[in-house]
Amino acid sequence: MSVTDELLRNNARYAEGFSGPLPLPPSRHVAVVACMDARLNVYGALGLNEGEAHVIRNAGGVITEDEIRSLAISQRLLGTEEIVLIHHTDCGMLTFTDDEFKASIQEETGLKPPWAAEAFSDLDADVRQSISRIRNSPYIPKKDSVRGFVFDVATGKLNEVG
Amino acid sequence: MSVTDELLRNNARYAEGFSGPLPLPPSRHVAVVACMDARLNVYGALGLNEGEAHVIRNAGGVITEDEIRSLAISQRLLGTEEIVLIHHTDCGMLTFTDDEFKASIQEETGLKPPWAAEAFSDLDADVRQSISRIRNSPYIPKKDSVRGFVFDVATGKLNEVG
Repeated sequence: MSVTDELLRNNARYAEGFSGPLPLPPSRHVAVVACMDARLNVYGALGLNEGEAHVIRNAGGVITEDEIRSLAISQRLLGTEEIVLIHHTDCGMLTFTDDEFKASIQEETGLKPPWAAEAFSDLDADVRQSISRIRNSPYIPKKDSVRGFVFDVATGKLNEVG
Repeated sequence: MSVTDELLRNNARYAEGFSGPLPLPPSRHVAVVACMDARLNVYGALGLNEGEAHVIRNAGGVITEDEIRSLAISQRLLGTEEIVLIHHTDCGMLTFTDDEFKASIQEETGLKPPWAAEAFSDLDADVRQSISRIRNSPYIPKKDSVRGFVFDVATGKLNEVG
């Protein structure tokens, strides 16, 4: 049995105790942008329940064009007003450089990716970079509460980046 | 008190019961790509625990360049092998068109976004489109298990798109 099949079995159990549907717009008017890291359970770590927040995730929790797209839809069409950014300690993005990663792909496939890999060497600096990308986007209207955090994978705590 | 501050209070409680750190690579070798929708609690709906899976999310659960980037990092550097795609019923992406959304932004800001909004009108067709984008990417090496689902926000069930 594949892992996907095991997850489907878990889903059948989840559906047994499920009560829906909830409204489409997030009830707490917040959008979270976090790293895809397996150890960062956004619902657990923030105490979020179904229906409360948009959750956007990618490698690093960085802000690229696709996160601007998602945040623009979140705020303009679905009424979110606060943004919470989460990077984390021991992140895979600290373990390589864009040049190395793209060269290894080119070596294997013959093609160099046209995109930035978005690796970084300083967690706090990259959180600030992500905040700056949001602040500088003309497509995101609500910027009064854009706060960035580093999740500590050893303690489970969020530490704010000032 | 802002919602962000409330989430930080929740996090303090989470950290009290937290035991870490877990290893960096996802223990179940799976990456999930899902819509950011607030009603889709990926950890609950798939029975995932901390440390098991990469979770990538955006508006629609669509595959753009940034999801290719995240999946390439997930597979090439962190050993995931299966991909699970999740769209859902009652999705906000069904309620507008790219042209409408981009025109409304242009009207307000004077700038038309250079990116596609990635709206869609047929859920199953867009799941298949997402699978095709993965299958056609030269940067994602492992494609033996790429399966797509629609999460029913009324029942909590995942239904596979064939």
